[in-house]
Amino acid sequence: MLGPGLIGGSLLKAVRKYSPSIELRAWARREEAVEELRASGSADFASTGIAEVVAGADLAILCMPVGAMADAVSDFPEASPGERLLVTDVGSVKQSVVNSVESIVQKKGGSFIGSHPMAGSEKSGMEFAEAELFQEAPVILTPGNSDGETLSQVSALTDFWESLGSRVSRMSPPEHDELVASVSHLPHVVAAVLVNTILGARSNAGQYAGGGFRDTTRIAGGHAGMWTGILMENREAVLGQLNAFSSELEKWKEAIGKLDTDELRSFLTRASSLREDS
Amino acid sequence: MLGPGLIGGSLLKAVRKYSPSIELRAWARREEAVEELRASGSADFASTGIAEVVAGADLAILCMPVGAMADAVSDFPEASPGERLLVTDVGSVKQSVVNSVESIVQKKGGSFIGSHPMAGSEKSGMEFAEAELFQEAPVILTPGNSDGETLSQVSALTDFWESLGSRVSRMSPPEHDELVASVSHLPHVVAAVLVNTILGARSNAGQYAGGGFRDTTRIAGGHAGMWTGILMENREAVLGQLNAFSSELEKWKEAIGKLDTDELRSFLTRASSLREDS
Repeated sequence: MLGPGLIGGSLLKAVRKYSPSIELRAWARREEAVEELRASGSADFASTGIAEVVAGADLAILCMPVGAMADAVSDFPEASPGERLLVTDVGSVKQSVVNSVESIVQKKGGSFIGSHPMAGSEKSGMEFAEAELFQEAPVILTPGNSDGETLSQVSALTDFWESLGSRVSRMSPPEHDELVASVSHLPHVVAAVLVNTILGARSNAGQYAGGGFRDTTRIAGGHAGMWTGILMENREAVLGQLNAFSSELEKWKEAIGKLDTDELRSFLTRASSLREDS
Repeated sequence: MLGPGLIGGSLLKAVRKYSPSIELRAWARREEAVEELRASGSADFASTGIAEVVAGADLAILCMPVGAMADAVSDFPEASPGERLLVTDVGSVKQSVVNSVESIVQKKGGSFIGSHPMAGSEKSGMEFAEAELFQEAPVILTPGNSDGETLSQVSALTDFWESLGSRVSRMSPPEHDELVASVSHLPHVVAAVLVNTILGARSNAGQYAGGGFRDTTRIAGGHAGMWTGILMENREAVLGQLNAFSSELEKWKEAIGKLDTDELRSFLTRASSLREDS
């Protein structure tokens, strides 16, 4: 487990709880983080040296920003004969991870299958980590573009996530990136634009807001640096979704502007029933 | 209490719990609803006849769609000499209510002060009513445009809402309508547009969505007919807010399209810190 943030820290806790026989080795960039890992006993072994953490492991999980992954796997040791390291990640985009990581992993004698656990919150950091984070969470594996992996590795990785309570599905990296642009990146941008529109114009508006405003904008509290990376890595799919959203919004504005009550009601009814059935 | 929906039903329960000495009289349009009110003992008196429910009351609260309020107050009895009926409502817009209701109430010898309890949920109907709905909820009174009311009536209405746990503030009807267009109507439209964009393109997308999507779109499950009325009643302010939102969104699209990482990060940082401080 490489990188003890919210997801990495939660993985340590979840594996300890649900698969206690697995030996947990953890890497962190900062010495203080390593000392915390040691003091808390969250991992059986912890170090700032990637090579010694990964040596001899069956599975390495990259829990760091997508932009840092290529450097991390470059520091992996070469596999010894007979060893077969499986590398996965927990990043929110997949095609760019495959592009930057897969060939390096394969050169080291390992194989790469992307994972995206759709868990987390607007919080970040190990202090919010919890063993139950992955319960009922959708996890998407993207084995499509990887030549090296075998069916048994896909199935082992599926078992790993299912042991933590997740619901696993599989698709290609581009399919994944389109899907998350829609269900995750678009809502994030919309929530943040909403906050800047409402609170930017009237910073005390929140005191008059009911639960609707608070729920709708909760994810806008997410980590700005991390989200900048995610949105830029997936910018084409994200722009496509933002344009689709804008077109839909224009139809609503037109209906309201024209006092077309029937049309507005049909839009609202559609939203209400789509959401109910989802 | 006229109209036992989510808000009206919750008012009955809240007054019974927090001001048990008040005599509760309830009106409902449908005979079955009146029978339920009688059977459950939620009100001391219940009827489908508005005049007999309101007769002798100190305070009448209109808990019905805004469009039905003028007809309802037209059926009120004339005040006897010495009586001073105070009428309020729980509608989500205020200027149009004042326009349609105030002069009728004054002709009957009463006075009108608008109330907007910013409580509720995506649920509607008496079956979801609860006594705690108004705890910590902002309630806005709009005494501005009413000539008839006296300071003591404003203060009595303030005491009434505070006794149910609400936080009361006052502003003019137009100020209120601008405020709710921003903190309530805009998020509602945006959530519904988001649902139609995402689930309209892929109805099973919800199974891959984390809590972010569910929170962001929760209010889109609201009652379509009620929201059509609210948005149309307040359409000018709503369109102004939707245009402000669109302009902000265009800036984000431009930053993403131009790969302007610094600008995107500054937008996201602003959203995160505005929300945190709100």
